[in-house]
Amino acid sequence: MTSKPVVVETVRELKALTSAFRSEKARIALVPTMGALHAGHMALVRRAQEVAEKVVVSIFVNPTQFGPTEDFSRYPRTFDADFEKLSELGADAIYAPDAAEMYPRGFSTRITMSGPADGLESDFRPQFFAGVATVVGKLFIRCAPDFAAFGEKDYQQLKVVTRLSKDLDLGVEIVPVPTTREPDGLALSSRNAYLSAEERAIAPVIYTALKSAALNIRGGATPVDAAQKAADTITAKGLKVDYVAARHAETLAPLSGAEGEPIRLLAAAWLGGTRLIDNIGV
Amino acid sequence: MTSKPVVVETVRELKALTSAFRSEKARIALVPTMGALHAGHMALVRRAQEVAEKVVVSIFVNPTQFGPTEDFSRYPRTFDADFEKLSELGADAIYAPDAAEMYPRGFSTRITMSGPADGLESDFRPQFFAGVATVVGKLFIRCAPDFAAFGEKDYQQLKVVTRLSKDLDLGVEIVPVPTTREPDGLALSSRNAYLSAEERAIAPVIYTALKSAALNIRGGATPVDAAQKAADTITAKGLKVDYVAARHAETLAPLSGAEGEPIRLLAAAWLGGTRLIDNIGV
Repeated sequence: MTSKPVVVETVRELKALTSAFRSEKARIALVPTMGALHAGHMALVRRAQEVAEKVVVSIFVNPTQFGPTEDFSRYPRTFDADFEKLSELGADAIYAPDAAEMYPRGFSTRITMSGPADGLESDFRPQFFAGVATVVGKLFIRCAPDFAAFGEKDYQQLKVVTRLSKDLDLGVEIVPVPTTREPDGLALSSRNAYLSAEERAIAPVIYTALKSAALNIRGGATPVDAAQKAADTITAKGLKVDYVAARHAETLAPLSGAEGEPIRLLAAAWLGGTRLIDNIGV
Repeated sequence: MTSKPVVVETVRELKALTSAFRSEKARIALVPTMGALHAGHMALVRRAQEVAEKVVVSIFVNPTQFGPTEDFSRYPRTFDADFEKLSELGADAIYAPDAAEMYPRGFSTRITMSGPADGLESDFRPQFFAGVATVVGKLFIRCAPDFAAFGEKDYQQLKVVTRLSKDLDLGVEIVPVPTTREPDGLALSSRNAYLSAEERAIAPVIYTALKSAALNIRGGATPVDAAQKAADTITAKGLKVDYVAARHAETLAPLSGAEGEPIRLLAAAWLGGTRLIDNIGV
């Protein structure tokens, strides 16, 4: 029997709560989310509970990381169901600010990123990482957690927030959590809810194509050829590929070709009106 | 008889020092500087000492706030003299990081500002406020001061860092300090050291022109006309005007014409190879 999470909506309440946690010598792990929680988020919360005594889950559909033509307005908002899931897991607190609490009138500050943010998602969602970095920077400063759990599903985002915490000396250790997948390999995503039954049946092709590409690279294919073949496989299923790329697994820089360089394969593609992303290590 | 300031160069030493200050229940005021300290900086330190028990002065010539054609390389660096001045005043600590300490290899984060950063200096120094906001954001996070003293001489910067602290919830109260002037009205600036004797004799025209403009506005002239007349006066002395502008004193937005709107007059002009700025309230 676990107690329900405390729900706070203002920075003042959040700071009071986290101060109380710290006065008990509890370490705090933050799990930043946009709600619409699924089993992938539950894995983040469980991992957070392994590293810290107190877990705060933020739920905020951040308008600034959506482009003008993207799915901000239709993004699923399921607070009651999210609250139930977090209650079952025994999360300690939910921070659910509204937009005016996060970005008060006159708000004029943006955190922009280069390095790991260059290319890939940024080529197709030019505002995305500035939106992410600004809101995550604010969440880290407001909550001052010891740890923050981020999923490998959003691999470039994981590397961006790791860089952000280091660059601004925010003192938050980023805890990466492996991607949770459906039995057929599809990476869990709140956006999977947009898929029709027919699209849902096709969607795992991104993962299977990336897996083949990884095997091909291990078998001696060049990363460029393997990525191209994966893109062709995905396209053949009727998806529109934004990118399939092999990058340095830590810096996300283009591969130098150096011996033993760690490689990550990353992909984004449109299935009908839904944009899906995935990635795997080689 | 005052003790010499402690000099720290790394974030680790800085954090140890500020933790020690806080464990004594001392409030901390930060005075961010680029060194080359003059009586204007001394006024900042004295004001800081009025509001807080411990004063930390940072000295860092921040490369990212200089444009490629600006005076970064020739900007005066006078650490020994700065140390003596701060010793005489009884400053508690000097934080003097080097560039690699502030921006380690792989640094990829930039804080950019709109709102009070729009126009004026930004029209002529497009990288300036991103450089300022990034370094001041880092200094605020590293030092976590209760207060930070900034001079009104850099009035737009004062408004930008005030907005920054609020937007990122950094919890630093910005303490504005009136401009220190030479007897003939010239605002103190480290860049005054670049002026020849002849230029130095001309330089107060910016202040005297702004004073006349303020009187004219109080006497019924439109802010636009008064600013134009001040620009003409400055130009007539052989300076090249970047801008003379009347703005809302708090937001720095263009004037709306509303009754009782607080007005600030701001100017920037080149005198030979030296760029001078000044501003006054109306």
